[in-house]
Amino acid sequence: MDAWGERLAGVRGVLLDISGVLYDSGDGGGTPIAGSVEAVARLKQSRLKVRFCTNESQKSRGNLVGLLRRLGFNISEGEVTAPAPAACLILKERGLRPHLLVHDGVRSEFEQVDTSSPNCVVIADAGDGFSYQNMNKAFQMLMELEKPVLISLGNGRYYKETSGLMLDVGAYVKALEYACGIKAEVVGKPSPEFFKSALQEMGLEAHQAIMIGDDIVGDVGGAQRCGMRALQVRTGKFRPSDERHPEVKADGYVDNLAEAVDLLLQHADK
Amino acid sequence: MDAWGERLAGVRGVLLDISGVLYDSGDGGGTPIAGSVEAVARLKQSRLKVRFCTNESQKSRGNLVGLLRRLGFNISEGEVTAPAPAACLILKERGLRPHLLVHDGVRSEFEQVDTSSPNCVVIADAGDGFSYQNMNKAFQMLMELEKPVLISLGNGRYYKETSGLMLDVGAYVKALEYACGIKAEVVGKPSPEFFKSALQEMGLEAHQAIMIGDDIVGDVGGAQRCGMRALQVRTGKFRPSDERHPEVKADGYVDNLAEAVDLLLQHADK
Repeated sequence: MDAWGERLAGVRGVLLDISGVLYDSGDGGGTPIAGSVEAVARLKQSRLKVRFCTNESQKSRGNLVGLLRRLGFNISEGEVTAPAPAACLILKERGLRPHLLVHDGVRSEFEQVDTSSPNCVVIADAGDGFSYQNMNKAFQMLMELEKPVLISLGNGRYYKETSGLMLDVGAYVKALEYACGIKAEVVGKPSPEFFKSALQEMGLEAHQAIMIGDDIVGDVGGAQRCGMRALQVRTGKFRPSDERHPEVKADGYVDNLAEAVDLLLQHADK
Repeated sequence: MDAWGERLAGVRGVLLDISGVLYDSGDGGGTPIAGSVEAVARLKQSRLKVRFCTNESQKSRGNLVGLLRRLGFNISEGEVTAPAPAACLILKERGLRPHLLVHDGVRSEFEQVDTSSPNCVVIADAGDGFSYQNMNKAFQMLMELEKPVLISLGNGRYYKETSGLMLDVGAYVKALEYACGIKAEVVGKPSPEFFKSALQEMGLEAHQAIMIGDDIVGDVGGAQRCGMRALQVRTGKFRPSDERHPEVKADGYVDNLAEAVDLLLQHADK
């Protein structure tokens, strides 16, 4: 593999995944990953542009940022690209009125959206809200629509809480897709539109940016398909087999965000 | 399409799906589909062999037969091919100790199976048992296995209760397959082994038998792939679009089991 200098040449901005990179969620909110609070601070003091790009869909952007600030991170709402606000734009543009299969924590993001006589289903990481009853309700609503529309906030397989791996929204999307014979529209990583909107907000071209995430497919593969570079951290949901993934090869693997920032500050934008 | 006489020529045995053909399940057990009690009786008085072939995995075979007898059907346990007993054979043959994600109603079928230190997951139609917590437990167990084995009792998309369509086990199988990056082994329709074991129990070759079901893919498509003929009834989970299914075309569509039996008694085994 090329030396880090070559791999990071020309990088002018960094997209950071949040869960599994900055912190692990869990009881009491979660815990920062060792070195990440300082790494974010150093990155923001550098000449590199920084943006947070998350598929978090259990919490509103405000709640997520509040939690991260309590954990010590220097982060504000305007720096975060998240799927719920992106989905609201799509719903309004297309005149869609969603039935929401979402966590109570993110419901406030949809306050301005008309949810009467639903003509689509929006699914997000509902956690314990993924009861049989709630899933069946969403399924029945889709089956009653002539052209069923299912919009998913992310399509992650699982994420890591402090207590262990947890099923993510993508698994439940597959369940509804199979039952209804439809294909969901994904808002969030790895959707190219989502990465592009984050790049636009940074004012950078894809080749000038690098994604740092713990998800080999959603973060690394998705960013690379958009022409960005991407590093995988060995924290969060990382598993050793990711480094031998049959389809996706990161531009580099690092132990954690702190190591990634060390390398970036040394080699990027040269 | 050929006349019924040609389509049913040489049929010597009938495989009957249960849910959606004999009865619709629901509150208080369920209700017989109009004409089905008499249709089964007439079929059993004829020269045709009859066997019941179900993916029912919420109830033990004994409970299912007890329910059907209370609804008026002439049926005994020995006439039913069901996935739970078939799965038990596979578990024993391969030394597998399952973690059971199943409905309490079917748990008794696994009484003789060693469930200590699980080295696989068996999933069946768990209904309300498909809570996030139970799904996550099964997911975590699979992720901890070096070679995850997921055995599914059926892979139906949905079934019909008197109150409406209900998500079936297949949807939840897709969720676990996606989350774990694995492929489940299906015991039940449309697995060829399952149809073949039913044929063997009838002592018939595939070309001598016809399947009658309400599931265009699981019943009709599955039976046809084994070389059997298959009729779809317009009861249970049948939807008009099934008659324009892009991949599966039944050998005939009938309004209900009563009409199928009329036609069979008139034309089969000639």
